[in-house]
Order: sequence, then C-alpha cells, then structure tokens
Amino acid sequence: MKARELGIEVGNLPTGSKNCITDVKGVKVGHITLNQDINDGCIRTGVTAILPHEGNLFLEKVRAACYVANGFGKTTGLVQVEELGCIESPIMLTNTFSVGPVLQGTLQYMLAENPAIGDSTSSINIIVGECNDSYLNSIRLLAVKPEHAIQAIQCATNQQAEEGAVGAGTGTMCFGYKGGIGSSSRLISEGDSFYTVGILVQSNFGSKDEFRYANSVGDDDKERPDGSIMMVLATDAPVSDRQLKRLAKRCVVGLSRIGSHIHNGSGDVVIAFSNAETIQHSSSKAAEQVTVLHDDHPIMNLLFQAVAEATEEAILNSLSQAETTSGRKGRVGEKAPIHRKS
Amino acid sequence: MKARELGIEVGNLPTGSKNCITDVKGVKVGHITLNQDINDGCIRTGVTAILPHEGNLFLEKVRAACYVANGFGKTTGLVQVEELGCIESPIMLTNTFSVGPVLQGTLQYMLAENPAIGDSTSSINIIVGECNDSYLNSIRLLAVKPEHAIQAIQCATNQQAEEGAVGAGTGTMCFGYKGGIGSSSRLISEGDSFYTVGILVQSNFGSKDEFRYANSVGDDDKERPDGSIMMVLATDAPVSDRQLKRLAKRCVVGLSRIGSHIHNGSGDVVIAFSNAETIQHSSSKAAEQVTVLHDDHPIMNLLFQAVAEATEEAILNSLSQAETTSGRKGRVGEKAPIHRKS
Amino acid sequence: MKARELGIEVGNLPTGSKNCITDVKGVKVGHITLNQDINDGCIRTGVTAILPHEGNLFLEKVRAACYVANGFGKTTGLVQVEELGCIESPIMLTNTFSVGPVLQGTLQYMLAENPAIGDSTSSINIIVGECNDSYLNSIRLLAVKPEHAIQAIQCATNQQAEEGAVGAGTGTMCFGYKGGIGSSSRLISEGDSFYTVGILVQSNFGSKDEFRYANSVGDDDKERPDGSIMMVLATDAPVSDRQLKRLAKRCVVGLSRIGSHIHNGSGDVVIAFSNAETIQHSSSKAAEQVTVLHDDHPIMNLLFQAVAEATEEAILNSLSQAETTSGRKGRVGEKAPIHRKS
Amino acid sequence: MKARELGIEVGNLPTGSKNCITDVKGVKVGHITLNQDINDGCIRTGVTAILPHEGNLFLEKVRAACYVANGFGKTTGLVQVEELGCIESPIMLTNTFSVGPVLQGTLQYMLAENPAIGDSTSSINIIVGECNDSYLNSIRLLAVKPEHAIQAIQCATNQQAEEGAVGAGTGTMCFGYKGGIGSSSRLISEGDSFYTVGILVQSNFGSKDEFRYANSVGDDDKERPDGSIMMVLATDAPVSDRQLKRLAKRCVVGLSRIGSHIHNGSGDVVIAFSNAETIQHSSSKAAEQVTVLHDDHPIMNLLFQAVAEATEEAILNSLSQAETTSGRKGRVGEKAPIHRKS
Repeated sequence: MKARELGIEVGNLPTGSKNCITDVKGVKVGHITLNQDINDGCIRTGVTAILPHEGNLFLEKVRAACYVANGFGKTTGLVQVEELGCIESPIMLTNTFSVGPVLQGTLQYMLAENPAIGDSTSSINIIVGECNDSYLNSIRLLAVKPEHAIQAIQCATNQQAEEGAVGAGTGTMCFGYKGGIGSSSRLISEGDSFYTVGILVQSNFGSKDEFRYANSVGDDDKERPDGSIMMVLATDAPVSDRQLKRLAKRCVVGLSRIGSHIHNGSGDVVIAFSNAETIQHSSSKAAEQVTVLHDDHPIMNLLFQAVAEATEEAILNSLSQAETTSGRKGRVGEKAPIHRKS
Repeated sequence: MKARELGIEVGNLPTGSKNCITDVKGVKVGHITLNQDINDGCIRTGVTAILPHEGNLFLEKVRAACYVANGFGKTTGLVQVEELGCIESPIMLTNTFSVGPVLQGTLQYMLAENPAIGDSTSSINIIVGECNDSYLNSIRLLAVKPEHAIQAIQCATNQQAEEGAVGAGTGTMCFGYKGGIGSSSRLISEGDSFYTVGILVQSNFGSKDEFRYANSVGDDDKERPDGSIMMVLATDAPVSDRQLKRLAKRCVVGLSRIGSHIHNGSGDVVIAFSNAETIQHSSSKAAEQVTVLHDDHPIMNLLFQAVAEATEEAILNSLSQAETTSGRKGRVGEKAPIHRKS
Repeated sequence: MKARELGIEVGNLPTGSKNCITDVKGVKVGHITLNQDINDGCIRTGVTAILPHEGNLFLEKVRAACYVANGFGKTTGLVQVEELGCIESPIMLTNTFSVGPVLQGTLQYMLAENPAIGDSTSSINIIVGECNDSYLNSIRLLAVKPEHAIQAIQCATNQQAEEGAVGAGTGTMCFGYKGGIGSSSRLISEGDSFYTVGILVQSNFGSKDEFRYANSVGDDDKERPDGSIMMVLATDAPVSDRQLKRLAKRCVVGLSRIGSHIHNGSGDVVIAFSNAETIQHSSSKAAEQVTVLHDDHPIMNLLFQAVAEATEEAILNSLSQAETTSGRKGRVGEKAPIHRKS
Repeated sequence: MKARELGIEVGNLPTGSKNCITDVKGVKVGHITLNQDINDGCIRTGVTAILPHEGNLFLEKVRAACYVANGFGKTTGLVQVEELGCIESPIMLTNTFSVGPVLQGTLQYMLAENPAIGDSTSSINIIVGECNDSYLNSIRLLAVKPEHAIQAIQCATNQQAEEGAVGAGTGTMCFGYKGGIGSSSRLISEGDSFYTVGILVQSNFGSKDEFRYANSVGDDDKERPDGSIMMVLATDAPVSDRQLKRLAKRCVVGLSRIGSHIHNGSGDVVIAFSNAETIQHSSSKAAEQVTVLHDDHPIMNLLFQAVAEATEEAILNSLSQAETTSGRKGRVGEKAPIHRKS
C-alpha cells in the first residue's frame, strides 16, 4: 500500500491521480525484476527505465539538469547533462555493478531506433544511475545483461508504476528495512498556470534509528553499506536547465526530512527533466523560441515545495510498498513498520 | 594605438567598427582615473564601469554568467549570477582594496534610481571585479571613494572606450610592461544570423618572457604580484545563461594564446552577459517566451572562436594603448614593445 | 532562553558546554547592534564578527570551504575560498546593503594589523555574509559604517555568544517571527578522536506555517522578502577543504528539517572552517605535512550528523533567544511560540 | 617520430627521459588495437589503459581530480572523483560506444583481484573516457568487448608508451589529420623539490586551418564530428585533490595554444592524479598525515607551466606519431605535415 493508504500524508499540496511520476504527461516507467536463487547465491536485482516522453527521445530531447548531493556513486551521463542541459535517452536505474551492461543495452536500443547515430556525426549520451544492492543481492554474479535494459524500456507504460521490491529496487534496503522503488507526485497552480511534479526514487540508505516514520531502535548492522538514493524528478512546468537544477536541489529537503543526513558512502543523485517543450536534435535555424518560468514568480516556491514533498513521500512509498525479501547469506530485508513517530 | 594599427591582427573574424566592447549595441563604458603624487605615495588607480544596456539595469536585467579560471581574487556578486543567470547592475572594475567603496557607490547610484529597492521586498546584486595594482599604486592609501564609482557610471558612453592606463587599468602591469584596459570585438554571421561579441579586459598578469608578442628576455621582479585579469564579455547573440558560461570559458583560450598559464596568484575571472533580450524585474505571468540559440548550430563554434580572438586582441590592446607610467617606490611600468615573436 | 531550556532537544549527540560555536576552541564572536528610531525610520541592524582563532588570521589561515544552497545573496569572498580552500580574515555578517562598508572596515582592520598587505605582494580576501533585514530595518538609511565592523571584531570573545535580536540579527525575521543570531554545538567521539562542531546562524527566512516547532497557521505577509540564512560552521576536526565542503552541505539537512524548502529569493550560504591546523601565509618549503580525516572512517558520518543537528538547533535558538522587536512602518517581529508541533 | 625529433620543441622546461607519462614513476600504459576490415565495415578502434601505480589500485588509491573543459562527452566515474578526490581503478580510454564494455571488463578485472568488493560493503568506481572515432571506425559494429579492456590492463608497462594510431587512438582524427595517442612529460625543480608531470592524450578534434603547426588551408569536411580530447595528467608532486584540479585546468592552456577553441561538440576532459602518496582503502585511524604543496610556493607556477607545455606537446606527438590510416566509406586520415607555422 502507498503511505497515504496507511493514513500518512506528507505536506499540503495535492497529489496527481496516480500519485506517481507518471502523472507527468508522457512519462513512462518500466521494470525488469531478477529474482532467483542459484547455487549459493541470491539474485535480487533488476533494471528500471524512466522514459521522459512517448516520442523518439534522441530526436526530441528534454531539458534536464542533475544535482549530486553526495557523489559516492557511479551514475553515468551527467557530464553532458551539465554541459548541454538536456537528456536524449531513457533514464536507467540498476545496481552498481550493472552500469556497464545497462549502458550497453540502452545504447543498442537507441542505435536500433536511430540509424544515424554513429553513422553520420552524432553520438548519444545515456544516463544510468545505480545503488549498491549487495546486502541482499549476490552482486558479484553480474546477473544483469544488456537485454534486460532493452526489456525494461520496451515494457514501460504510463500506468501507476509498480513500487517496492521491483526493478532496480528489488534488492535495496532503506532505513534498515526493505526499500526499493517509490514514487509520488504533486499538482500546483498559480493563476492560470497548472503544473505537475513527479518523483521516482530507488531507495537504499539509512539505519533504523534515523527513520522518522517509525519508533525503531537503532540497529548496528555493520555489513550494510551506507547505501545510496537515486532520485528522478519529472515536471511539465516549462523550466530551463538552470531552473531544473534549482528544483533538483530541493529533493534534498525531502530526503533530509525523512531522516537522512546524506551519508558519507552514499551516492545521492538527482536527475531532473521537463518535458514541457522538447529540443529538436538538429535545427536549421540558429535561434529558437522557448518558454521558461520567471524565477521571481510565486510559482517557483510552489515548485520547490512540491519537489520537497514528493521526494519525501516517494521514499516513504518505496518502503510501504516493499514486501519482506530474503537475500544472500540468510539476510532478510523486513517490511518496514510505518507510523507517525511519537 | 590599437594593435591592428601596429599591423598585428589576431584571428580571422572581422572586428566591429570600433573594435571595442561598445560595438555590442547599447553597451557603455566609463572610466574614472586617479593619478596623483602625494607625500611619499603615488596614486595610480581608478574605476571602470561597463553598462550592459542604456535602460534601467535593475528593472531590465540581462542574462549573464561568470567563469572563474583561477579564483585568487575578490570579485563580488558572482554567487547570485550563478543562481539566477542575470545581472542587474553596472559591472564595475577597480583595485583589490576598493571593492568595498565601489560596491557602496554603485549601490547608492542604484538606490537613487530605484526607490523600491530596499523599501518593498527587493534587494540588488552588484558586480565588482578587481586587480591588485599595488606594484605602481599606493594601494594602502585607499584612494577610491564611493563617488568615483558613481562618476564612472555617469560618464559612461557608447563611444570607443579609452584603453591603456585609464580607469581601473591606471596602475596595472601586464607581462612585465604597462597593462591596463583593452577591448576588442568580433562580428559573426551564419545564414540570417548576425551577432557581435565584445570583450573588455583589465590586464594585470604575466612576466616578460611569457609574452608572445615580443622577444623579451625573462624578468625576475619578485616584487610584482602574480596579478590577475578581469574579462568582461558582451554579446547581442540570444544566448542562455548556460550558453553564456560556455562562451565565458573560451576567454581562457585567448588568454592562453597570448602567453598566460593562469598563474597561481591570479584572479582570472570572466563576467559575461547578453543584452539580446532583457528580463523584467517582476512579471505577473509565470511563463515567458525567450529566444535562445540551438547549441548544435554552427553559429556556436563561431561564437566560441569570436570570444577567443577578441580576448587575445583585447589583452594586446591593453598593452599597445598603455603609455609608460611611473609609480610608487620609483618603479616604472614601461610601454611594451609589440611585434610578432620570431 | 535556549531551546533546550524550553525542553526541546534536537538530535542525539551531546552539545558542548556553551552549546555555541565558541565551544570550538579559539573561536570568538563579537556583535555590534544598531538600534535607533530616527525621523521616520527605524534602524534595526548591526554587524557580527566570527574569528576562526585567536592569532593573526592573515598570517595563520584556516582551512575553509563554502556551500551555496541557494544563491540569491551577496556574500563576498567565496571565489577565493573555492580556489585556495582557506580563510584569512574574520567572517563578517551584516545586512544586504552594508556589505561594502563592512568589507571596507574589515580591510582597514586587517591592514592595520598587517603592514605587509598591499605593500609587498600580498592582497587579502575578506568574507562578508548578509541577510536582507528590510522588513524591520530602514535599510536604505545605510546605517552601518566601516567602524562598526572594526568594533565587532574588537569586541569578539570566546564566551557563549549573545543570540537573538543582536548584531547582524537585530532586524531579521524567521518563520514570520523575530529571528536573529543563533548558535549550537555538538561533541563527537570515536575511538581516540574527540571533535567539536559549532554552528552560528543569522536567520531570516520562512513563513509561519512552515515552522516545525509551532502550530502556527499560515501567514500571508507579502511585504516580507523570501529572506536568507547565513550559516557559519566551525570545527576542530582536521578536515581538508574538500571535506569541509562535504560538512557544509549537511547544514541543509538541519535547515530542511526545521521547515525551509530553501526559498527562491533566499541566500542560503554556508561558510565552513577548521582550526585544527593553520596554514602559514608563506612558506619556504614547497611541501608540508598536514593532518586530515580518512573519508571512510565512521567519524565522518558522525560529523555529518553533528552538522545537521547543530544547524537545526542553532536556527531554533535564533528564534527562542529573540525578543519581540518593533520596526519600520509600524511592523512588529513577534517572539516565536516554540513547542513540539502536534 | 616525436615532434622533438622533427625539431619542434614546446616551451622551456626539460622533458623526462622518455618524454612520456611513464616518466612519472610507477605509471604504466597498455594498448589494445583493433584493426580489421570486415564486410562493408572498417574496425579502427581500441582500448588504452593508464595505471596510476604498480600496486593494487583499489587498496591503494591515488589522489585525483577531474576538469571538464567542455562536457559533450560520456566519461564515466567523474562523480565520485569529485566527491572523494581519489581514483581506485585503471583509467581507461576507448571509443564513445564502448564505454559500457570497457567499464564491464575493467570491473571484472578489479573484482578478480579484490574478492572483497561487492561481498562485504565495498563498491568500486571505474573511470572510462572516450572519443568518437566514427569518422574512420565503423563504431556501430560495437567491436570492443570487455576482454579487450582486461587485455589492455594486463599488457600495460612502464616503457615509453606507443603513440599515434594505437589503442584508443587507432581511429581518431585531429586537426583534420590522423590523430591518436600522444604523450609528453616535464621535469621541474625548485630548491630541494624535484617533480615530474606527464600527460597522455587521445586526440580527436579540430580542423586543418586551426592547427598551429602546419600551414594548412581550411577544410570543410562536414562529416567529421567536432570531436573530443581526453587528457590524462599524472604527477609525483604531492598535490591535494584541490590542487590537482588546479593543475587539470592548465591542460586547457596547452590545448588552446595548439589551436583548439574547445569546440561545441567536443568532450574535452582532464583526469588528473598524483601517486606521490596513496590512500589506503580502509583505515582504523580517523586522522592521517599527508603531504601537500603550499599553494603560494613558486613550485606551483612551475607545475602549471609544466602541464601547459606537456599537454601541447602530447597533442603534437599524437599527430607526429600517427601514420596515415584508411577507414570506413573510403575515408583516409592522412599523416599530418608538422612544421612551425609561418
């Protein structure tokens, strides 16, 4: 169940109808879940694909930005996002050791769709984020293959995304309990402007005593890595790449409020995009008209608030939707108790 | 004389009619020069003001970016330029110890023009760059006062700017010779697009053997600080703040080619703006239409080339236009010999 | 009263004996408060000086870093801190329009103490942070003069710092109530290592409904600017400049938890230093031995947690210690009610 | 032949005995070259591995930094280098579409060497840089496999590295001629301090008219991408990660001087490390003694100059050492004429 079904609401702004990143029109999510016990190993991992819109992502790029709250992580593709302010591929999530095959599979998918890439002068930049799911998952078995990335892209839909122990969240742990994929959204309006903000996270950080939605006592499991969290931010508000980075930074507000202090060994990375307008791959005209928000308009603070609220709730949903999952070395990621802390 | 009058041309692109930052329509430059021998001190300093357009700079802001090639410097105002991508004041240049009074004078000027600032909810961000002119100038005398900043703004014109030992360049040294203010411009066109790039520098760096337009032997004057260079980049191309930062980085190309390796003790700072379109201080509408260049259009490489060429030539002009200047402790900043190095 | 005296504790780590930034050995704080009703104006402003250690700050620099959570602010000196990783002056706080005179006064103080600066080859970098206190303070009267900065430095002590409506916090507002200066500290230990983290804030942001330590209903005072918060972080842990930036980022955790979403119009800036070891101004030896923490040691997460907790509590103290203050236009900054939100 | 054998010297500082990055003690370089005509395709690509020292790179990390002059590129691993200031793997170079398999092969190599990674709590960060060699190479054939990365690591030696059309430089183009791998080094000394700086580049940028070591007329081959350059900087000077970033920025000086204006479509990336001291993977002690240079010591400017000179000469060597190479679509990358431009 989503946290709201448990009676826990985060913040004041209304959610979209699916309370999911797919409330942002055009956004699609697909998961491939790998769940297998073999020999003396447990495969508990997978791939999650987030597609910024329903068209050809290379030919119609979306404005984008990233923000690294803590960079103990291996996300690829951020260099070019920083330089050009756009994303031209699906955004892929997986485990730390599978960045290579997921990058390769996504490349193969994009090459098949776009014969010009690599033949005439184009290259393509692909975004792959990751968390270290090795507490439950036998990560050294390198179970994820390029075709899993392709399948995750192909099965993506704009329905309410599956959450919890699914896709790239199959084996992750959060606040000492079973974490995974979570999502939430917010609707904002100001005058004639109506916008949606959606967040999807892959949660994999924190210890029990830090969790602000449970009265858990501290745990002391030194075998669990500091972990990470990947946060994907989608909006239909016509924000520039600079403004998207401002939005991305507000994910840290939600992350802080649920209990993280952004751990040393954590890769806490935000990848943000707006699909309000797309950028054509090539243009015969030097100058183009684009729509952007006025930074000083009150809508900007509402967007910031929406990001903070949806991030906190997405993390909460990643816990509330995750079922108890067994893993390698007899470890168990237990379903989190969730309630207002007293 | 400008370097071109000495027969030295930099690069291939044509210059504007004034070969000056004021070739960018609307841009104005003003200098206040302080030149006085008192007691046992020599005042050789001043203030230079660059106005991005002819209107009210606070109510109509210009898109902007900055780039710090080396941050051994005290430039103010960059934090807000980074966040909001705009400039809302004149860009002021002076000596290292006069940032305070120039900031204060510019503030007073802007407050007088804009009664709302500080009364209702607004504040204002002011840009002041600096070089350490203490080789010739008795900088500890703190000769620059707030009124000098106001005067520099008030006397600004769109004529070809004075260059050499003038304004903020009165006491600066470059490549062991007398440096100062220099400017240059480039015109570019591609299809129907015609744009101008203008650069103005305050040069204050380098040793004789590094200078690539003279056959000077090395000097070894340990009393001269590593120095700095302030570079102001203006354009009428409709570039976004992100694109302006890309342009700003290309100033380093010109700076490198004339002989700098960007010294340890140098404040090498670029402040870049486009006045193609202005941003209204306040807007009742959340979303606005703006014009920006397509990053992948060939015009972008031409802009980069223009920045590189104009920066190199502006530095060269700061030397060629500067006259021999005497200073404190009997020091002399000699006029540079300028010729193609053999 | 400090929040703890009201029965509110933040986090789990123990505070230092003064629960103040001055628990970090050597750190001194001084305030000058300007409080005067004149004609039709109200002066409610001042200057606060934080001295990183008791020696000559220019000759013995401290390792430093800064982090700009949101850059709608006018802090000076950050460019050089980024480049060189050190601070060589007092850290000064004041109002937005007084950065110039405080910069100038601090410069004069440092020049008087160090005859070599500006005479031989040295310059000096000075840090001035600010908040916009114009809700209560007649900021256009420009009441702060250079001598106030000098006085703030001269009166600095290592006692428990005064908090609330004092110094640079005299006129600031926080969460719709009277804010101001607040401070808190944390002690951490791990094995043989014992370190202190201290935070001092100048709080000036937020609306009543955002405050997480009161059941206030929303306010809608459109005349109050988005505001800002300056955060100064001191520690005696031997952290490198890179590590200090990591610590500085965790101030946002505390800021988020007390209710901020880091508003659009806010200058949310952290200035961080360690006085564990100082850096000599000049060195005849190329290479030096320095002590730094191992990033992967558990002490790092404790430091992060300490920063988060002390920041939240420092902000809370800035409210709990501030008395109701009247200001211009008949406005009143009321003392905040503070209690655990139900 | 190296450019020096052609009589062209860059700068004033002496080179190391091999004039190669392997002059930095412990650094090793290995290439795998893929050169095959199949069906209607030409494979002209490969992998180059740079090993920072001769020990276990994961257990003994090197201090590191990166600098992105222009981010139109797909380099992986930079996020963690920024956060932690170290490198814990070989630095791999390949073509744009082979980042995935090279990442995977390098991971496999490191997992085999380090059974603890991914079993207990560790992950590993791998650096892969790339250029788009699709002008000559049939890049869509995806010829590079994970085992090629492993082989490149295994064959690395500390001999003078092969240059030109070899390894990751097999199919790259520079200034319209055949580019590839190039390397150069510089020795500096100041008092008792003796240090080495080595640069290795994969050159793939520029047009004929931009090249400053030939009198070529302009070319207008619109089929050639803007290209890229990967620059690897090695030193035995005991510099901190912050200082390494300062060094890395000076690569742009050399790059500018040889003729680049840092093109729009270029991934111009510097990866820098010092192997003067290593960082143990784990430490039982919180605090450690490390050696760093004093920023203000004259040695720093010498290091900057060494980086600028060695980068320019490494690029020149990548051209002078490359032989004419045929490629797909009947294209030919001709050997560059090299001489002082008149």
